[in-house]
Parts: sequence; C-alpha cells; structure tokens
Amino acid sequence: MSLCELSAAEAARQIRDGLISSEELVQACLDRIAAVDDGVQAWTYLDPAFALEQARAHDLHRQNGLPLGPLHGVPIGIKDIIDTADMPTENGTPIHAGRAPDDDAALVAMLRQAGAIIMGKTVTTELAYFAPGKTRNPHNPDHTPGGSSSGSAAAVAAHMVPAAFGSQTNGSVIRPASYCGVYGYKTTHGLISRTGVLKLSHILDTMGIFARSIEDLALIAEQVMTFDAADPDMRPTAKPALVETALSDPPVEPDLAFVKTAAWKDIDEDGAAAFIELAAALGERCHEDTLPIEYDDGWALHQTVMSVDMAHNLQGLYDNGKDQFSPQMIEMIGTGRQASAVDYRNAMDKRDWLRSEISAFFDRYDAIITPATSGEAPAGLDATGSPAFCTLWTYLGLPAVTIPLLAGNNDLPIGVQVVGPKGDDARLLRTVRWIVATLAE
Amino acid sequence: MSLCELSAAEAARQIRDGLISSEELVQACLDRIAAVDDGVQAWTYLDPAFALEQARAHDLHRQNGLPLGPLHGVPIGIKDIIDTADMPTENGTPIHAGRAPDDDAALVAMLRQAGAIIMGKTVTTELAYFAPGKTRNPHNPDHTPGGSSSGSAAAVAAHMVPAAFGSQTNGSVIRPASYCGVYGYKTTHGLISRTGVLKLSHILDTMGIFARSIEDLALIAEQVMTFDAADPDMRPTAKPALVETALSDPPVEPDLAFVKTAAWKDIDEDGAAAFIELAAALGERCHEDTLPIEYDDGWALHQTVMSVDMAHNLQGLYDNGKDQFSPQMIEMIGTGRQASAVDYRNAMDKRDWLRSEISAFFDRYDAIITPATSGEAPAGLDATGSPAFCTLWTYLGLPAVTIPLLAGNNDLPIGVQVVGPKGDDARLLRTVRWIVATLAE
Repeated sequence: MSLCELSAAEAARQIRDGLISSEELVQACLDRIAAVDDGVQAWTYLDPAFALEQARAHDLHRQNGLPLGPLHGVPIGIKDIIDTADMPTENGTPIHAGRAPDDDAALVAMLRQAGAIIMGKTVTTELAYFAPGKTRNPHNPDHTPGGSSSGSAAAVAAHMVPAAFGSQTNGSVIRPASYCGVYGYKTTHGLISRTGVLKLSHILDTMGIFARSIEDLALIAEQVMTFDAADPDMRPTAKPALVETALSDPPVEPDLAFVKTAAWKDIDEDGAAAFIELAAALGERCHEDTLPIEYDDGWALHQTVMSVDMAHNLQGLYDNGKDQFSPQMIEMIGTGRQASAVDYRNAMDKRDWLRSEISAFFDRYDAIITPATSGEAPAGLDATGSPAFCTLWTYLGLPAVTIPLLAGNNDLPIGVQVVGPKGDDARLLRTVRWIVATLAE
Repeated sequence: MSLCELSAAEAARQIRDGLISSEELVQACLDRIAAVDDGVQAWTYLDPAFALEQARAHDLHRQNGLPLGPLHGVPIGIKDIIDTADMPTENGTPIHAGRAPDDDAALVAMLRQAGAIIMGKTVTTELAYFAPGKTRNPHNPDHTPGGSSSGSAAAVAAHMVPAAFGSQTNGSVIRPASYCGVYGYKTTHGLISRTGVLKLSHILDTMGIFARSIEDLALIAEQVMTFDAADPDMRPTAKPALVETALSDPPVEPDLAFVKTAAWKDIDEDGAAAFIELAAALGERCHEDTLPIEYDDGWALHQTVMSVDMAHNLQGLYDNGKDQFSPQMIEMIGTGRQASAVDYRNAMDKRDWLRSEISAFFDRYDAIITPATSGEAPAGLDATGSPAFCTLWTYLGLPAVTIPLLAGNNDLPIGVQVVGPKGDDARLLRTVRWIVATLAE
C-alpha cells in the first residue's frame, strides 16, 4: 500500500510512532498528484516545495521532542473559498485572482494548531455556486465531480490527500462526495466557525469534510469544533467527543427511517433500484417513513433564503465585476433581488418551526437514510448535477454523512446519505459506522 | 404619606418587616385608582376583589413563615400585550376581545415567583403600535400619555401602582415615561424573555419597566433577567447584580456624552433650552459629542425592520380581521409588504455593524445623555407623540433610562434619556443614580 492511501488517522499514528515521516507522506501525496492530477485537475493552488518545507519543519518539531497535535504532519486540502494566510484564496472567480488574505480562516488556524499541513487549495465552482471549475471526476474524466467543493472531493477520491475541507450551502459537500465515491460529512450548522470563509448565507453555509474513513471525519471535525464568537450562528457548547463516540458500538442497534422526500421524483432508475436494495439489506432496523407534508416546502424556502442572502452578500462583487459573473450567478442574484422581505422573513421563521418539529421524528429514529444524489455523476462538465437530495437537510441545518456504498449503470459511485438530529453529530457518525459494519457482514 | 406612594422596594421592606400588610398596600392602590382613574383610564382589566384576594394569600404566606421573594406582596401593573393566565390579554385590538391565554408570559411567571401581585392589565395602543387607547396624561387629561405602554406609564405616575411593565419596539417605554414624568427603563435587547408577549419584531421588541425610583427599576429587572431558551435573542449569561451595582457609588465620576443625534431637528424650543441647561449643570463630566454619520441611517433601517416584521408577524390577524385594524396599522403593513428582502437583510446586518462600532464610543464615555422626547406630551389624544428620540437606541438594542428631570412651557414633565453600552445595564443604572444625585447637590 502506497503511503498516499493511508487514512489521516493512520498516517498521524505512524508519524507519531516514527514509522514514517511527514516528508515521506507529503512526498507520496505529491507523487500521486504528479501522476494523476493532469486528468483530474483538483488543485487551484499547489506549491510542492512549500508543502515539503512544512513537512520537514513538522518532522524537525517531532525530532525535538515537542508536543504533537492529533493531525501532526498530515496533509489536508482546503477548498479555495477558505482563507489561508500563506496561499492565495481566489473564491473561484477571476475577480479575486491573486487575492492574498492577511489571515487564516479560523478553521485553518485550528487545523495548523492540530499539526496538519495545509497541502494546497482545491478547486471550487464560481463563488461556491453553480458554474463549474476545471476539475473532472477521477472515476471518469468525462463526468462532473459534482460541486461546489469539486477539487476537495476529487483530490480525496484520487488519493492525493487523505482528507479535505469543503462547504455546503445547498449540496456542495454531500453531492461531490457521492459522485466521487468518498465519505462526505456536512456538520450540524453552527458547529464549525466560518470566520474567513466566503459568505453566501450565514443561515445556510456549513463546513464539511471529505475523507476515506469514518474515523477521519470524526478526528478532523473534532479539531475544528471550537466556539468562535465571530460566527453569529455558533453557541458556546461542550466540545463533542466525536472520535470516541464514532468508534464505539451503539448501546442498542439504531433505528433508521428510510425517507424518500419530495426529491425522490428526480431519482435515476439505477439509483433508485440500488438504494431500495440497500434499505432492504439493512433489514428490520430500517423502516420506510415519511416526513409531514410541510417539509415539501423546504426546497422553495431554501431558494428564497439562498437567493436573497447571495444577492446581499455578493452585492459589492456584483457592483465591481458583474461582467465577470456567470449567467447563472447573475440570474440567482436577480432572483434574490426580486424577493419580498416578508417572504424572506417567513422562510427564516418557517425553518425554526420545521427544525423543532423534526425533533419528534428523531425521537423515533436515530437517523434518516436517504439518497445523497439522484444517481451517478452525470456526463459532461458544464454543470455539477442536482443538489435536490441535499437541499432540505442544509436548510434545516442537520448533520449529514454520505457513505460510498453504491454504484450505477456506468460503474460510477453513488453515495448513501444518513441524516441525524441537530447537534448530535457524534451519534450520527456512530450510526454511520454501524451501517457500514452491518452491510459488510 | 399614603401607602400608594411607596416605592416597590420600600413597600417590600415594610411588608417583610411586618410594618404593613400586602392587603393594606393593595387596598391603598385600589383606593387611589378609585379616586383618580376615571380621569386617567390606565387600566383595561382590573378586578379589585381578585387583587385583594391575592394580597391576603400573600399575607397568609408570610404569617406562615414561608420564604418571601424580593417583591413579596407588591402590586405591579402589566401592559396588556403580556400574557397572563388569570386575566384576559387583549393586545389593544378588538380582534382579541376576551382572549384568555393558557399561560403566563415568562416574565409574569418570574414576577409571581418573586412574590409580586399582578394588579391588572394596563392600556396599550392597538397592537403596541400607533392607534391610541383610552388613557390620558395624569398631569393633564387633554394631553396624550404617550404610547404604546400608555397605561403602565400613567398608572405609575398617578401612584396607582409602584411599578409596571411595558415594552418598546420604537419608543414605547421611554416616550410615555417622559410624558408622564416617571422613570422608564428599556433593558438591553435580549436580557428579558419575550415568551408570551405579543411579537411585532423579535429584532426590536424589548421589555421595559416604569417606576418612581432607580432602585425599583433595578430590583424589578433583576427578578426577570433569567435566561429563556424559547426567546431567540437571549443568551445564557450570568445574572447581573443590578440592585447592588445601581446603589453603589461609581469608582470614578462617569464621563457623559451629550449627543443630539439626527432627531434633534424635531426638538421643541422649550425642550431644547431645558436640556441644554441640564447638560451645562452636569459640568465638566458632560461633553457634547457626535456619533459618526452612518448612525443617521438608523431611523430608516429601523423602519425597514419594523415594517417587515410587523407585516410578517401580524399576517394572520390581518387576514382574519383587517377591517378592525386602524388605517395607520394597515399602512405600516403595506409598507412592510413592499420592502425588498435584500433591503431587509441589509437593515439587519447594518445593525450588527453599527452595534459593534458604537462600542468604541463607549470606551470613551460611560453613557450618552440625550433627550427622551421632543418635549412635553403634545395636546390631543389622537396620537401618542414622536418616538424619534428613541428609535436609534431601540434599533441598536442599547439599554436606556429616562429620568423625570425637566418640565416644559405647559408645566408638563420632560424626561432626560441616558443610554449605556449593550449588556451593561447595571453600570447604566449606577450612572443614572449619579446624575440624579449630582444635579440634586
């Protein structure tokens, strides 16, 4: 097994134990990038010499007997809407070409504090919305990797880094993870700081992680779930013990609700067949159920919030560089500008109501199991696929994980999405691990 | 001195010490109401027998040696937009005639827990907005008492109760307190729960207290500043020691900024003269200063938030009973419905920015001193006067106290408004006490 195939947790253990050096690991990842990235194009900024320099500094740190963080020496990819003080952050728009932030985003600073090496910046769609970047699906370069966290998903899938950060305002973590065949984890809204991250909508924007193991999702998330008063949606709460809980066995077998939602009408035939077969394989712990009819409004309500907030937050960019915006972005901003304030207020308040109502659903079930995408990554690179299977959960701010479990007619991966109650990310990760173990039996 | 002239704090002390009974106190207040309320009309619901019954129960409680709350046996008036489980709550609209809430508002329950007697419900304008109720100014029945907390201000001014609760979304506590010649205290936004209170705008709605002493403001507010997770704008923070701080001497003499704001253009000639004389009397601790120009937008931003939120929150009432709405209310809702979502979002975000900027101002000054109203209560009962001197502070969520210090050409009272930094209500009350003491020297 090449070092580039190690999980983040395993790599951190081997570095800590002196079995490998950070430099060897980073070099293996750089070799992998050199070998495959011409066809994938996951990176928008990558300086191999600087990455190796960081790795050698981390190795020296260890040799000097200094304390090591839980991610010491492990390279991580960062979506290029997340500020880094030592690399440009261009937000997927030519308007920000060469933009050099003064400060790291809060989560980047926390990753460095945990010992991680910031490998480089991964491709995003234009301003984390619709218009695709250069990245291709590592399983088939004629298919989209999904978006908006395109490069992060593709880089992890192609073993260029063990893990990467992305963000989701609609389907931007779960969808590319499903299409690229890796784990994707959208955290509970408000658990990871967005200070220093491009803001589309503080109500919807949520940080997420791509990795190839559940332990990695837990380990990496745990390093960055620290209260930041500068993020208006964070609250000071006890830090969750994600790794400990995720790796433990559930006290009783979890109950799962197989929920189709209003998005099911968009599902591909092979995706539907694969999903139904999987739900059956989970046996008696998995019950088909439906959410109350009010949840069917979630997609329209999400659209109102997202379009208004984008029109507001991108106003300055629009005024200065509208001619460099994609037609889809201009259309979205136009939609937001036409929205009435009363509809917007209603979309915010309805969310609070729907959020509190769904907690009754989670009294009966540990998690909801539902498709991550309509099926395989669509052919073509001019769009990033439908986010419809993610929209409702993003709007509600619930944590979601997609598991790379299925495949479609073109032999491309399809994810299975598992959604948990707000704030109980640790239990969700434990349930995900139980699902994977149960299906492997 | 008649018992009805006692402050809440003094009455509570005398009841605790057995010098007077709650029944005697409540009877004295009822006698006062019987004597003067025909001309004032402060109450929309008052059941003397029930008030006395509560008082006797409180006296029995004390006689049995049970523990006493800080307000044991003291009657308090409650604005009729604040729910009470044992009295109707009609919100100043015929649509809610006879409305009987199942539960006490959170703050009413806390007052009862502190031993207070809910005396009755005081007159509000229509839905706490523009259209006046029946109340008249106790100093001159041809003049407005101000609104929307008209009955609470008038009842305290006329010695019918030692204290009363109101609420402010624009100028509804500070203005009637100024016109009626009592202390009015609008708390920092988010320090007192609004669960069970008519909602116009969660962003603006703020609870307030009317009393005839600073100690009473502190004592009563302290009983109800308990975290309530059901109020979206509350945060769990340590309970402030309002009484202890308010009654202490400032470690150094406070610095005051005399700020005119954009509202000054509306001030009456006699109000301006009286205010300038007062600022001069405060001497070298009072410096005239100005807020940055951006704060001039506060009035328009407030209007956007208030009209949109009212249009949203009163939608159901409007749909069912629009023909019973005043023309002003219909106009306000129409304004809100026409607002664009982007303007509304901007008005919310601009507030956060203005709030954080003004903290620099409070690094230099302990408090801002500024008029509470344009002058005396205007003649006539078909309007409640201009809220313009309160709007900015309500929008910013800052605590404000009006002190009954001045009088105008008609010998009606005029308040002096003192505004403090967000969350530091205790220091504000201490500064207010210093101002009163300094001017009395």
